[in-house]
Amino acid sequence: MTALDEPILDVGHLAHAELLTPAPAESLAFFVDILGMEQEASDGGSVYLRGFGDYERYCLKLTEAPAPGLGHIALRARSAAALERRASALERSGRGIGWIEGDVGHGAAYRFTDPDGRLFEVYHETERYQPPEHLVPAMLNQYQKRTGRGIGVRRLEHVNVTSPNVRACREFLERELGYRALEIIELDDGREYGAWLSVTVQGHELIYIHEGAADHGRLHHLAFWVDTREEVLGAADLFQDHGIFIEAGPAKHTPIHSFYLYVYEPGGNRIEITSGGHLLFDPDGAPTVWTQQQYSSSRAWGRGFPPSFDTYATPPTQA
Amino acid sequence: MTALDEPILDVGHLAHAELLTPAPAESLAFFVDILGMEQEASDGGSVYLRGFGDYERYCLKLTEAPAPGLGHIALRARSAAALERRASALERSGRGIGWIEGDVGHGAAYRFTDPDGRLFEVYHETERYQPPEHLVPAMLNQYQKRTGRGIGVRRLEHVNVTSPNVRACREFLERELGYRALEIIELDDGREYGAWLSVTVQGHELIYIHEGAADHGRLHHLAFWVDTREEVLGAADLFQDHGIFIEAGPAKHTPIHSFYLYVYEPGGNRIEITSGGHLLFDPDGAPTVWTQQQYSSSRAWGRGFPPSFDTYATPPTQA
Amino acid sequence: MTALDEPILDVGHLAHAELLTPAPAESLAFFVDILGMEQEASDGGSVYLRGFGDYERYCLKLTEAPAPGLGHIALRARSAAALERRASALERSGRGIGWIEGDVGHGAAYRFTDPDGRLFEVYHETERYQPPEHLVPAMLNQYQKRTGRGIGVRRLEHVNVTSPNVRACREFLERELGYRALEIIELDDGREYGAWLSVTVQGHELIYIHEGAADHGRLHHLAFWVDTREEVLGAADLFQDHGIFIEAGPAKHTPIHSFYLYVYEPGGNRIEITSGGHLLFDPDGAPTVWTQQQYSSSRAWGRGFPPSFDTYATPPTQA
Amino acid sequence: MTALDEPILDVGHLAHAELLTPAPAESLAFFVDILGMEQEASDGGSVYLRGFGDYERYCLKLTEAPAPGLGHIALRARSAAALERRASALERSGRGIGWIEGDVGHGAAYRFTDPDGRLFEVYHETERYQPPEHLVPAMLNQYQKRTGRGIGVRRLEHVNVTSPNVRACREFLERELGYRALEIIELDDGREYGAWLSVTVQGHELIYIHEGAADHGRLHHLAFWVDTREEVLGAADLFQDHGIFIEAGPAKHTPIHSFYLYVYEPGGNRIEITSGGHLLFDPDGAPTVWTQQQYSSSRAWGRGFPPSFDTYATPPTQA
Repeated sequence: MTALDEPILDVGHLAHAELLTPAPAESLAFFVDILGMEQEASDGGSVYLRGFGDYERYCLKLTEAPAPGLGHIALRARSAAALERRASALERSGRGIGWIEGDVGHGAAYRFTDPDGRLFEVYHETERYQPPEHLVPAMLNQYQKRTGRGIGVRRLEHVNVTSPNVRACREFLERELGYRALEIIELDDGREYGAWLSVTVQGHELIYIHEGAADHGRLHHLAFWVDTREEVLGAADLFQDHGIFIEAGPAKHTPIHSFYLYVYEPGGNRIEITSGGHLLFDPDGAPTVWTQQQYSSSRAWGRGFPPSFDTYATPPTQA
Repeated sequence: MTALDEPILDVGHLAHAELLTPAPAESLAFFVDILGMEQEASDGGSVYLRGFGDYERYCLKLTEAPAPGLGHIALRARSAAALERRASALERSGRGIGWIEGDVGHGAAYRFTDPDGRLFEVYHETERYQPPEHLVPAMLNQYQKRTGRGIGVRRLEHVNVTSPNVRACREFLERELGYRALEIIELDDGREYGAWLSVTVQGHELIYIHEGAADHGRLHHLAFWVDTREEVLGAADLFQDHGIFIEAGPAKHTPIHSFYLYVYEPGGNRIEITSGGHLLFDPDGAPTVWTQQQYSSSRAWGRGFPPSFDTYATPPTQA
Repeated sequence: MTALDEPILDVGHLAHAELLTPAPAESLAFFVDILGMEQEASDGGSVYLRGFGDYERYCLKLTEAPAPGLGHIALRARSAAALERRASALERSGRGIGWIEGDVGHGAAYRFTDPDGRLFEVYHETERYQPPEHLVPAMLNQYQKRTGRGIGVRRLEHVNVTSPNVRACREFLERELGYRALEIIELDDGREYGAWLSVTVQGHELIYIHEGAADHGRLHHLAFWVDTREEVLGAADLFQDHGIFIEAGPAKHTPIHSFYLYVYEPGGNRIEITSGGHLLFDPDGAPTVWTQQQYSSSRAWGRGFPPSFDTYATPPTQA
Repeated sequence: MTALDEPILDVGHLAHAELLTPAPAESLAFFVDILGMEQEASDGGSVYLRGFGDYERYCLKLTEAPAPGLGHIALRARSAAALERRASALERSGRGIGWIEGDVGHGAAYRFTDPDGRLFEVYHETERYQPPEHLVPAMLNQYQKRTGRGIGVRRLEHVNVTSPNVRACREFLERELGYRALEIIELDDGREYGAWLSVTVQGHELIYIHEGAADHGRLHHLAFWVDTREEVLGAADLFQDHGIFIEAGPAKHTPIHSFYLYVYEPGGNRIEITSGGHLLFDPDGAPTVWTQQQYSSSRAWGRGFPPSFDTYATPPTQA
């Protein structure tokens, strides 16, 4: 084996996502009161929100915009040198945009797009969270006190986007950023229906799902983590009592086996509450590749999704 | 079998308990902010608090007092005729006090004491809860909306009191009120260490625990129900982060097998968060009677309690 | 209130059900290996099976038959006198059949039919379970050791049957046996779509669901209890890995809020694994009565059932 | 930042542990019948056992020996090149032993010892599990069918060993293998009481705990993973019913916040059933370093361990 065959291990983890909302006050209330997140900062038309388990200052940047959708996805590199290597590689790839000085809570970031034209950034320098007095936790190894308000999500777990070209996006992330595909669903026509990608032992950080109709990809959903499936079940009760539309779940995903619950936040974006699933420790195993037939005939617990799950994404397309 | 052998089935269930606190504001904050109860009414030095699953207006009357402890225990009779029968029997027993006109949320009640002199009342007429606009639930068969605030206890599950004469109290409740003992622990000297009593298939509504030192019984704890053991585990995290002293648990009780977590509320009273345990359907089975040896040698998961569990009750005694 | 207004409290609980199967060996394997029940006795073409939490010897009588379906439903009376009273009332009702000497594990039983002609029996005298050496539990207040085999259901929780005349059946059970309806769904044409009935604080023991097509009612399902929703989720994994068809769930029921999972056992009968739900303590409250519109517009978590749930019952009708 | 400051990322994960037992038949029955593992192979005096979630053939090598304890710990390198790099570094460290040809299920391994003289090996080439017919799972992305037997552990999660020199061992693993310390407890005398180390985002794979009395380290415990805390609670019931001594738990650990249950297997080794805890995503954060005072004053849920937890390890020392 040559050095060329060795894995790229420069990206540490998914750091945060920017969500666009045409209803900023209502979306903010949803994330604070129902999901139980904390407002850590605000700047211009954006507020920065954290789960109680974020070591960085936030995992969600919520930005007012004319339509719902995804602003950008941010990754944190493992080291300054790792960041330099990725920036160089991205520049060579032709998809680099260039450096920005940073944003609330983190330092210089290199911006680029995936083959769909979706905006990403990767950075290394970060501010580790310092809780204010009323959020100081009981134990030294907690980042923040639990408030007991709402669902109490721990962190952003993954971002799921739709794409007219899942394979190209998957291969770009593998080649330039070291993402590994854990599961792939292949359509009978040879295209890929979905790809589940991660840089850690958790089964997914980034997911691409096929969308034939659009000429460029959209946001399918952001997923926030809770520690137990019981909390996902409890979240469903809370959503129902607060008039939040439940699109699907709670139930078990076929890929990765995680437990899901999908709702729409007031700005129109789909949000998942998730837990469970398995960690995947094999550092160099082949991905699970499903044929259409295999996937549709052995869905977890025999269950599929409502039609909207395959058609609705943000921003919505004109009918 | 003659009619005399037939069970008395006049009491429907434990209805509410009155808790005394020398720190009314702090106790109220504990029950509202941490346990997630709603203040349904207030009157004089008392506030009336409910869990989200109470069909009556409240299950806890919190009353300012010089020392912590128990005010009274209230039971609801199955019917007006059942209430009359119990009032007559209690009067004949010599432990009757007499009728009161009622209290917030319920009608005429007959007051009496158990052999320890502890105050009880039994009533039938009640007001079923009507939620205000902001607490109207999503479904017709819910009493109240979930707020997502704090632990979110459903209801008062049982009252546990200490007694110098467990057997006398147990027999009084069996004879005059139709309570059934599900489990009894007998000391080697023939006295009873504990008795677990219920009028329903749930394993306990009233528990008497031996207390040698006192000349009359005190409050050991009030127990509030959550639907899952996971919520008990989550409650422990919330208590710790809010500086509430955790005395014991989360763990499994030996009698009834329920899952427990004990803390002290700011007024000094011990509060249990409980879930699980088994329902007991046998309508005429003998209670489980443990000898001291049997009980101590087969504790659930091999675990006992800290010393304070056997000595601390409210009001505290002078050392 | 006169004595006539007082509730009938003579029936203690649902005791067991007889299930008919055309595939006795495969059905037995399903209940023993997958559900984790114990074979307590066998007699003729029947085997008697128990959950680990049954105080009686069994909760399921599995009987070989040409077609799947329900054999009979057995109720246990609270006392010998209670049994006599119910037998007299049932005889007067015109639906009495008469006494049988008993069956494995219980004494004399009075047999009768509901308005659909469905066979019931009620008895009082019972044999309390004595575990063989290999099933002796660790604690005095357990009926049986946990084996760790399969799902490990605790007991039969309820029986759900289809009926062309739900209202007549509900009123018969209320009038003659003291069952209380906790929830009723009314169709716009005035007929009842479903009725949830119990003699205890648990929300259902007997459920009737409307079936227009048949001229007499059939079995919709038997439900077995596990202590946690997590065990229901785990059961779904086990069923899938063992090739058992999952029809619906895991999810939350609208009535009673219990958590469900429906599968078909090898004999063709629908079986539910259930947990959760709420206890209903109000001894004399009115049932929740849903209109069609109310029921369909506020389903728990917004979810309905697959079409087979409304059409499949046992024995299957000819297409 | 220079290349010297970059993290070593050559080790993929903890692969398996070899456990020594003087009671091989009883230990095997414990792991198969109670923990629900599968016997994948046997060779000489060893059997190789797997959890249902192992991608390799096994995670536990159980070997007959005169006394209980640890045989060796095996790590899997990310690539062939990574293995070469670690072998070279270990050789230079003076703690290298040399190559072995492999063992059941994996290829050439480089053996070495930690500063306590404890045997480790690191390898890359592995056989991915191929289930026999009766263990083929329902879905393509499962490694093995769930059997429904016993607890059903998914995999080996961590190895915890005692050491007279925690700091030296920690620094050796950091320097030569790229392990990161997530949490460290420092004694007031400057020595380290414990170190929690991992090469992935899961909080611990290897744990060293101070043992003053011994001249070289022993095995504190092996920990096996289940997916939910509810399964840990259920495991406690199963252990108690099967007469397995429960030493501590179920409860929450202070470091990493995982949920624990400790028992002794028939050979005398301590075994943990664990779930929960948090993932730690910060790729270059400083470890949490507790002083003695900080650690003892803010234990999770206020709970400590029984004295045996600090004194018992395998092989037991002479009293």
